[in-house]
Amino acid sequence: MAGSAFGTLFKINTWGESHGKALGVVIDGCPAGLPLCEEDIQIYLDRRKPGQTSIATPRKESDSVEILSGVFEGTTTGTPVSLMVRNTSQKSSDYSEIAACYRPGHADYCYDAKYGFRDYRGGGRSSGRETIGRVAAGAVASKILNTMGITLSAYTKSIGPVSADMSRFDPEAIRTTPTCMPDRIADGKAMEYLKECMMQKDSCGGVIECVIEGVPAGIGDPVFDKLDAELAKAIMSVGAVKAVEIGDGICASQARGTQNNDSFVSREGIVSKKTNHAGGILGGISDGSPIILRAHVKPTPSVFSPQETINTRNENVTIAIKGRHDPVIVPRAVVVVESMAAITILDACMRNMTARLSYLTDFYCK
Amino acid sequence: MAGSAFGTLFKINTWGESHGKALGVVIDGCPAGLPLCEEDIQIYLDRRKPGQTSIATPRKESDSVEILSGVFEGTTTGTPVSLMVRNTSQKSSDYSEIAACYRPGHADYCYDAKYGFRDYRGGGRSSGRETIGRVAAGAVASKILNTMGITLSAYTKSIGPVSADMSRFDPEAIRTTPTCMPDRIADGKAMEYLKECMMQKDSCGGVIECVIEGVPAGIGDPVFDKLDAELAKAIMSVGAVKAVEIGDGICASQARGTQNNDSFVSREGIVSKKTNHAGGILGGISDGSPIILRAHVKPTPSVFSPQETINTRNENVTIAIKGRHDPVIVPRAVVVVESMAAITILDACMRNMTARLSYLTDFYCK
Amino acid sequence: MAGSAFGTLFKINTWGESHGKALGVVIDGCPAGLPLCEEDIQIYLDRRKPGQTSIATPRKESDSVEILSGVFEGTTTGTPVSLMVRNTSQKSSDYSEIAACYRPGHADYCYDAKYGFRDYRGGGRSSGRETIGRVAAGAVASKILNTMGITLSAYTKSIGPVSADMSRFDPEAIRTTPTCMPDRIADGKAMEYLKECMMQKDSCGGVIECVIEGVPAGIGDPVFDKLDAELAKAIMSVGAVKAVEIGDGICASQARGTQNNDSFVSREGIVSKKTNHAGGILGGISDGSPIILRAHVKPTPSVFSPQETINTRNENVTIAIKGRHDPVIVPRAVVVVESMAAITILDACMRNMTARLSYLTDFYCK
Amino acid sequence: MAGSAFGTLFKINTWGESHGKALGVVIDGCPAGLPLCEEDIQIYLDRRKPGQTSIATPRKESDSVEILSGVFEGTTTGTPVSLMVRNTSQKSSDYSEIAACYRPGHADYCYDAKYGFRDYRGGGRSSGRETIGRVAAGAVASKILNTMGITLSAYTKSIGPVSADMSRFDPEAIRTTPTCMPDRIADGKAMEYLKECMMQKDSCGGVIECVIEGVPAGIGDPVFDKLDAELAKAIMSVGAVKAVEIGDGICASQARGTQNNDSFVSREGIVSKKTNHAGGILGGISDGSPIILRAHVKPTPSVFSPQETINTRNENVTIAIKGRHDPVIVPRAVVVVESMAAITILDACMRNMTARLSYLTDFYCK
Repeated sequence: MAGSAFGTLFKINTWGESHGKALGVVIDGCPAGLPLCEEDIQIYLDRRKPGQTSIATPRKESDSVEILSGVFEGTTTGTPVSLMVRNTSQKSSDYSEIAACYRPGHADYCYDAKYGFRDYRGGGRSSGRETIGRVAAGAVASKILNTMGITLSAYTKSIGPVSADMSRFDPEAIRTTPTCMPDRIADGKAMEYLKECMMQKDSCGGVIECVIEGVPAGIGDPVFDKLDAELAKAIMSVGAVKAVEIGDGICASQARGTQNNDSFVSREGIVSKKTNHAGGILGGISDGSPIILRAHVKPTPSVFSPQETINTRNENVTIAIKGRHDPVIVPRAVVVVESMAAITILDACMRNMTARLSYLTDFYCK
Repeated sequence: MAGSAFGTLFKINTWGESHGKALGVVIDGCPAGLPLCEEDIQIYLDRRKPGQTSIATPRKESDSVEILSGVFEGTTTGTPVSLMVRNTSQKSSDYSEIAACYRPGHADYCYDAKYGFRDYRGGGRSSGRETIGRVAAGAVASKILNTMGITLSAYTKSIGPVSADMSRFDPEAIRTTPTCMPDRIADGKAMEYLKECMMQKDSCGGVIECVIEGVPAGIGDPVFDKLDAELAKAIMSVGAVKAVEIGDGICASQARGTQNNDSFVSREGIVSKKTNHAGGILGGISDGSPIILRAHVKPTPSVFSPQETINTRNENVTIAIKGRHDPVIVPRAVVVVESMAAITILDACMRNMTARLSYLTDFYCK
Repeated sequence: MAGSAFGTLFKINTWGESHGKALGVVIDGCPAGLPLCEEDIQIYLDRRKPGQTSIATPRKESDSVEILSGVFEGTTTGTPVSLMVRNTSQKSSDYSEIAACYRPGHADYCYDAKYGFRDYRGGGRSSGRETIGRVAAGAVASKILNTMGITLSAYTKSIGPVSADMSRFDPEAIRTTPTCMPDRIADGKAMEYLKECMMQKDSCGGVIECVIEGVPAGIGDPVFDKLDAELAKAIMSVGAVKAVEIGDGICASQARGTQNNDSFVSREGIVSKKTNHAGGILGGISDGSPIILRAHVKPTPSVFSPQETINTRNENVTIAIKGRHDPVIVPRAVVVVESMAAITILDACMRNMTARLSYLTDFYCK
Repeated sequence: MAGSAFGTLFKINTWGESHGKALGVVIDGCPAGLPLCEEDIQIYLDRRKPGQTSIATPRKESDSVEILSGVFEGTTTGTPVSLMVRNTSQKSSDYSEIAACYRPGHADYCYDAKYGFRDYRGGGRSSGRETIGRVAAGAVASKILNTMGITLSAYTKSIGPVSADMSRFDPEAIRTTPTCMPDRIADGKAMEYLKECMMQKDSCGGVIECVIEGVPAGIGDPVFDKLDAELAKAIMSVGAVKAVEIGDGICASQARGTQNNDSFVSREGIVSKKTNHAGGILGGISDGSPIILRAHVKPTPSVFSPQETINTRNENVTIAIKGRHDPVIVPRAVVVVESMAAITILDACMRNMTARLSYLTDFYCK
């Protein structure tokens, strides 16, 4: 069945395959009155573009976005915003082996099991190019959040064994280093490590962290639609993510209550917390502190070393993947994680606007 | 707004507060023809019942479930199954301090920020008692899954620093040890650790693991409704869970591709994987291997040590929580995690039944 | 699959069978801060109660509602409001013939075709008692709408060939006449007609009209979620309704454009329309005029005349229905139509609160 | 908020404005394995194309559809099917007056009230061109239904006072007459009537009927998601539709129970009904008889006679609409009604596949 839609009030529906004609997204529920041009979105798409560094695939993809609907005279109209990126540089001829075999670590086998066959060219819908729609929608969500005083920043926390030292946090480095690390020294070490991986025909994983500031207390809904639950779904839905943490995350499971609890404190009537082990969410609802989450990303499954697997006739074979593949997924996924977080937070903020009867009467009886 | 509903085809809507008249769940979309009696559900509810061991709260709660609709002559009819548990043992008099203060690590402050006030008795809707509806629905989902050859088993993986040794895995221990660990030696150590926590007026966290066997390849939907994304939301929505892992989870982010990839192998035409680092899900779709997930649970926020916080007038105060509180949430949350996994897997299996045109024509043209 | 839930932000999930233990509804998304007591809901339920007049079934049903959750100290908390009515007067012994036969005009055959069997006692889930949940939720929605300045009034427009004369419109008559007509003279004639139907062991249909005043212009969403489309679904979902009209409805299909168009007019800057053929909705969005809709209700299918039909073994048989059945459904459905309209309008008003970016910035940046 | 999505398992999301770059639809949940090419869809789009007869607007629009995703080697893959039609012939210069005024019978005023401004060119999103996405998706749904043995046929039942005589029913006439009537004599009379309307600078309404054959008994869900409720929403959501009838519809409200009830009859074990007043749906679930519905369509609001209205400064003005406008909407809406019915029926059939536990066990345990 379906599966390509996300959100309740700010709803997105992405579409498109790696080697199809185009990829895109329809945003249904974008509020009217937002100034929006293609450049707003292009900036985000360019952050996921390949062909930029020695560790990214040398494909040249322009990935130029076109706004097809929902914007009139430079402003959103409240009707669906349709965004499209034409595919330009795909070479389908590379993929004959993939058609016949199930690559380890890829979804090939699962798609065949589900649908009976698959678009094997470049992974089809399970390709990383699927994220174009997410990022295009994330650019719109981020622009709206910014007008509300909410900002998001995702970056590479670690690559393989190399972690960014947060005491050296340099926000400019996120956009300028090839690893998207906020620490130039760690970036250098990570690049060394990645070269080693490539020489060994191998790949590695890493961690992306996202910090969301300016979210007021009270966002998120009880029970199933907790803000952290929605974020967990949003982030885990990004291909290759295998774990999601909120705040202290896995460390919370080894902590004592007296360590893990964050004390509330009032300074001249302004409420904050002395610490933020909770990562800005308590009981599924934002507490006004920065929201912090981490995505653990597995290594690129396309490695150039020979691998044992089966073909589509269920025969055991050995394959050696060719072509162009990044040794690490993390840097290009940073903007994807940030985009999914933005879409989730915006949707939760919109949903929160009917939480109290007084909100309705203030709106309709003024 | 809303937030208490979960699922697309097997839809549940829970309701009820800790100290209200009752708690319950409506299951909308339960298939007709399932033999179902109250005992089927009671068995699951009893697994989350307090008052059973030295580490659980000494409250006596019968938590007897009543089937109010959707079952006729012992069989589900296809119409909504309404399940209710009356509250019996709540003492509202204990909660005057909570009414006036925001407990660290609890949702008190966030509920007030969202709704303007809250039902402060026992945490209201943010209480652990909210999970009664989840577990009642999980019992129904599990019974259906069992008829389909799918089984789930959740257990305590670790408590504080004490981890179960999986080489000593003893399935009977899960239901009989106070910690729900599958390793009696670790259970003993964990109980020692918990007593120490209690003596220090402190609490601790832990990890729950859930293994789902028998899920055929092909379950889950691409992009946003990936099976792991749905599971991540389901599990993260359980109160106190701060991280969710699938398969190798956080370790995948430090692995190499050649280590993390699982080789497919065919033995007499039967496909399996040599390893299961992926935890049974690739590209968001099940691969036929056991599905493995872990929930990281924070320490019980209600600790008896004095804590700094603020009151509802935003004044700094010190509180010392009284009453009855488990030093660890994990054992009673084991059946909750299992229930949420069951509901998610069943819903995904139901959604999968329209994935191919041939499924429709087989169904309607036979 | 499911089917017992309605609404996007003000979501209801009803449950319960005619002869089960109880019936009820869970409202998920009810705004916090609404004063609510059982009496508020009981008043609405009493409007659909049988046993009140010579044309209604002589069953005595108390239909007392119980608020099980979501209200604390007399005010809604923002969490699910669970409402329940216990069944008290059901006699299951009357229904042996129904178990074996498919009554013409009833859903018996269809439920068996869908589910393989059915709860045959009193129609089970297809009974008119199913509307208890709708009306209970409608009472809550109406109370909220009233605080927003929106009022609803449904009444019987016609019974069989007898129509209310709107020039004699008497709002008090709606609540006091047995037919719920707003015209006492028509009420008298309709009662005569109904007695004639009963003497002839027959039944008849009728028309319910609902007028909604105070809805501001701008409510409803484009394309599929048009306000009239949502109302059409809401009203057609009431059992026995076979047609729904908005404004001039079927007459619009025979009108000329110059007749059917409503001129806008400005009087001292206040916009209105000279006529209201559109029934308050243009392009699916409210225009600020009263919203007018009509539901066409079929005759009670349970007639006491002998009828040809088949039994569950597909054998041709003749049945004569016994028991207690109203000769007309309309009067008891009036409050159901009003309730469904209230739920729909409230949900649309809530959805509208995020239509413009300025609404978000006004809300979050003040 | 949103509003451009429809369906639960076969989900569509349309987008696009009359004078934007393009219009389209994303189908999320289209089953894999359907042979699909652009010609399949083009045939349906051509049925709504203008410029074909004397009563349709003389605009030349090619309305050529492009399949952008979801089809691989001529077959659907199970992933989103994105369909797009580029706008080619729009002249924006015609619309300066519309920008300044609110046309009677149009949504101009309501869009401004909702969003603060509107894309005034050709009605923007409220234009009849919005239906391109519906019809493109309807073509896909119809092709699937046909493989399941379900066929749909919509036609013009009446135009103004001229009704088709069903005793002269000629299925070929539907596709070949300018009115889409199944009766060539009525078609001739209707064309005369339309010329008269045009001469009088006026327009008229009409009725569309749709017959759906081959739907097995058991389709549709109880309570809110009744098959007739879903159809009512689907059809009422088509612009200009002001009433929806199922089966005898409005006539049922004036009938007696003995007249309106359809007797079930068994002939050699095959169940049917002697009559079909119910229009194939009882209690919201299909009964195996043909499903019959009617849409009442208002007159084209764009008439060339002068009309009183207001401008955007709330001043009273008189306007005379220019440009190209059909005197009747009905013929071009026939395929839209058929498409919406197809999408609704297919979705209901897909939802029905999990109604019984035995369906799940048959599917997963074979």
